[in-house]
Amino acid sequence: MKLYEKLVAEIEAMVSHGVLLPGEKIPSVRQTSLHHQVSMTTVIRAYVHLESKGIIESRPQSGYFVRRRAGEPVGMELRASQPIPISAEVDVSRLVLSTLRSIRGHNAVPFGSPYPDPSLFPWRRLNQYASTIARRHPHWDVMDDLPPGNTQLIRQIARRHLENGLSVDPNEIIVTVGATEAINLCLQAVAQHGDTVAVESPTFYAMLHAIERMGMKAIEVATDPREGIDLGALSKIISGQKIAACMVMPNFHNPLGFQMPDEKKRALVKLLSEHDIPVIENDVYNELYYGESHPGSLKSYDEKGLVLYCASFSKSLAVAHRIGWAMPGRYRDKVEKLKFLNTLTTPSLPQMAIAEYLKNDGYDHHLRKVRRTYAQQASIMVSMVNRFFPAGTSTSHPVGGYVLWVELPDSVDSMKLYRSALEQGITVGPGYMFSPSNGFKNFIRLNYSYAWTPQLESALITLGKIVTSCI
Amino acid sequence: MKLYEKLVAEIEAMVSHGVLLPGEKIPSVRQTSLHHQVSMTTVIRAYVHLESKGIIESRPQSGYFVRRRAGEPVGMELRASQPIPISAEVDVSRLVLSTLRSIRGHNAVPFGSPYPDPSLFPWRRLNQYASTIARRHPHWDVMDDLPPGNTQLIRQIARRHLENGLSVDPNEIIVTVGATEAINLCLQAVAQHGDTVAVESPTFYAMLHAIERMGMKAIEVATDPREGIDLGALSKIISGQKIAACMVMPNFHNPLGFQMPDEKKRALVKLLSEHDIPVIENDVYNELYYGESHPGSLKSYDEKGLVLYCASFSKSLAVAHRIGWAMPGRYRDKVEKLKFLNTLTTPSLPQMAIAEYLKNDGYDHHLRKVRRTYAQQASIMVSMVNRFFPAGTSTSHPVGGYVLWVELPDSVDSMKLYRSALEQGITVGPGYMFSPSNGFKNFIRLNYSYAWTPQLESALITLGKIVTSCI
Repeated sequence: MKLYEKLVAEIEAMVSHGVLLPGEKIPSVRQTSLHHQVSMTTVIRAYVHLESKGIIESRPQSGYFVRRRAGEPVGMELRASQPIPISAEVDVSRLVLSTLRSIRGHNAVPFGSPYPDPSLFPWRRLNQYASTIARRHPHWDVMDDLPPGNTQLIRQIARRHLENGLSVDPNEIIVTVGATEAINLCLQAVAQHGDTVAVESPTFYAMLHAIERMGMKAIEVATDPREGIDLGALSKIISGQKIAACMVMPNFHNPLGFQMPDEKKRALVKLLSEHDIPVIENDVYNELYYGESHPGSLKSYDEKGLVLYCASFSKSLAVAHRIGWAMPGRYRDKVEKLKFLNTLTTPSLPQMAIAEYLKNDGYDHHLRKVRRTYAQQASIMVSMVNRFFPAGTSTSHPVGGYVLWVELPDSVDSMKLYRSALEQGITVGPGYMFSPSNGFKNFIRLNYSYAWTPQLESALITLGKIVTSCI
Repeated sequence: MKLYEKLVAEIEAMVSHGVLLPGEKIPSVRQTSLHHQVSMTTVIRAYVHLESKGIIESRPQSGYFVRRRAGEPVGMELRASQPIPISAEVDVSRLVLSTLRSIRGHNAVPFGSPYPDPSLFPWRRLNQYASTIARRHPHWDVMDDLPPGNTQLIRQIARRHLENGLSVDPNEIIVTVGATEAINLCLQAVAQHGDTVAVESPTFYAMLHAIERMGMKAIEVATDPREGIDLGALSKIISGQKIAACMVMPNFHNPLGFQMPDEKKRALVKLLSEHDIPVIENDVYNELYYGESHPGSLKSYDEKGLVLYCASFSKSLAVAHRIGWAMPGRYRDKVEKLKFLNTLTTPSLPQMAIAEYLKNDGYDHHLRKVRRTYAQQASIMVSMVNRFFPAGTSTSHPVGGYVLWVELPDSVDSMKLYRSALEQGITVGPGYMFSPSNGFKNFIRLNYSYAWTPQLESALITLGKIVTSCI
């Protein structure tokens, strides 16, 4: 079989198995050429052939799409959230922790997990480096890793940002125990006990945790499921009351999976800068894009040092190593001091293992594989939910990361669903975790990072039945 | 030479070199027998011989002491602190961090360091375990180490406590990123922004950091340099105002080096329990005793679950691994949740490396060596300070740990001294770090964990001259 014929067969199979849904854009010629390591000409030849067979269609200046056919199910679109803009006390951590426990305790199907499937990570190499470093290092001196952190790792992080198009000053980088610590420290650097912080709706609960812990209040801002936080709504809130900080996740938002367009990123930074409001940018999924290139960040539009950028290797390389970092702009010294007060230093061995891995090779290769896998599994998950969940279900359309946000029929209570599913050994992330005001009663988050197996497929079909029984 | 003659020669040398000072107790027969691995009879024979030579003397029911001779310098005793009992805002972290930086940046003589000399630690074995685990582990799942932490490590910690005479419920143990994180979480579990916390005077600055960071206030309580916090003074403070918590270091206090007598530990717990005041017990030096047995803890007298015990492996095994733990009594669930919010989990690899080390062997052997070394170096340091520092200098008499607290003549400003010493490549810990009210202007803390070399000796002589020039 010729190269282009293989490609044709593969795409035909993806369409017939529902990996690619009618109406969905298929990867661009350039993307497919990169992913499959074939020439652009081969890809174009395959696409033209698929078009002639009526399987895909080209739309001017938009690319190729799977052809819709009469009678086929079409995934429903999520609507933008409409939270009531009242600042609220936060208490979601208990629910989050007990959800995690039940995944571990019951060895349940991890649709409810926030973490990526660890089996996709390059453990063999990472462990080799850790092992070599452990043997090679005569003795470890905590002085070497005082905040801001291990110098080699900081250099590698700066280099990685540069490769991804963000020129950063290595002196701004502060290594932390995962992005969790980075977010906590950044929030404490800019806001006080009792202050109000603007968040997306839904918002990733790690941000709510930080707010909860420091006795601050959250105000939810309307958020579009494709483009992120509503600038009009945010602007209105800002002019009406004192907002100490804003916390957002512009790339591959958890749980919505959107990528905020670059122009909107620029506008958001501009709006907040005009009011001198610092913004904490949680960019932990930045390496997990399905598109053609690395997404931009708020940080790149920051002129006043008001963007406190947080990221980690937990979602893309090794969550158990707990290595994250902050680039806190004008709050750098404050965050560095808080890091010192909070945990003194970040453990040396994981820092050096990751620095060695980054220095040597393979990160890009690993990431290409992961992105391809997640993009495929996203399509499968969307297609499965549309097929097996009851009418009135809508899903997000993630363009990065590994979670799907699912709106269920109004009458479904996600906590009841969570408990019923757990009885059958299946977990889901109840919508309650993503809002301080319980605004997402009938929503769940599903993790699709795990390799799609017959067991997982049957678990999802079972879940669909449980959802139906909860209506 | 016979065994007892060797011992006689050794002790004679220690006395003549000032390692053992006139008036000082020498190690007990049992201790010496253990340390030198000779029979008790041999030790007794040596001691009797030394007594007959007029080098040591026995005191009824007290043991053996180096004989005082006319005209010999006698170390001055520290007096108990007399702080003004007014609660104060705390801001010492900037000074602490800059002191640490200067040690690293200038590669200076580390008398000012708070950390033990890393070269004494059993790196070869620890690194072997880390290396083996890294290679052996197919992949790491963060789920395995969700709070309270790695199960194997928790079991080993509980076993170690049991061996040391403290029976603990493994379910109470929560693994943290060093004792620093444990102290932060425990304090946050029991006190709020604006509350007042009672501390020793001087107090270890990590406790002040936690207070500072959470916007609480500290009230300093008079502290005896041999027996710890003054119960009368504490009781008076408690009856006069609302104290949210008490933070103490009853074993080998940093910087005083005392061990609070067991009866006083019991009385302290009783006093605080009567007022339902939680107490955070920082016991990081518990393994570093110079006496015959492991010291007791407040925790062992706790009947109401009010003692939040914090410790770590940083002082006794591997500071760069950053593994600590809390046993927070009735506040366990609160501390566990805060751990989850603060850093999610503690990195897996260091947890497992330490668990393997503890499981296998060698910890006791390593600790015996370290204790012997520190005890010897304490004597040398005390003797050197008494010999080379100006009149009007007094020192603590540490019975564990590796730091000496030195009171200099009144007119010496420890910050000025710190800067002058740094110019000559020598660091000291200025007294200002140990009090929120700047109560220890003319005090310094000296680290004696580093192997005593001619370079270190000459640095200490130089330091004595600088002190004299600062009068």
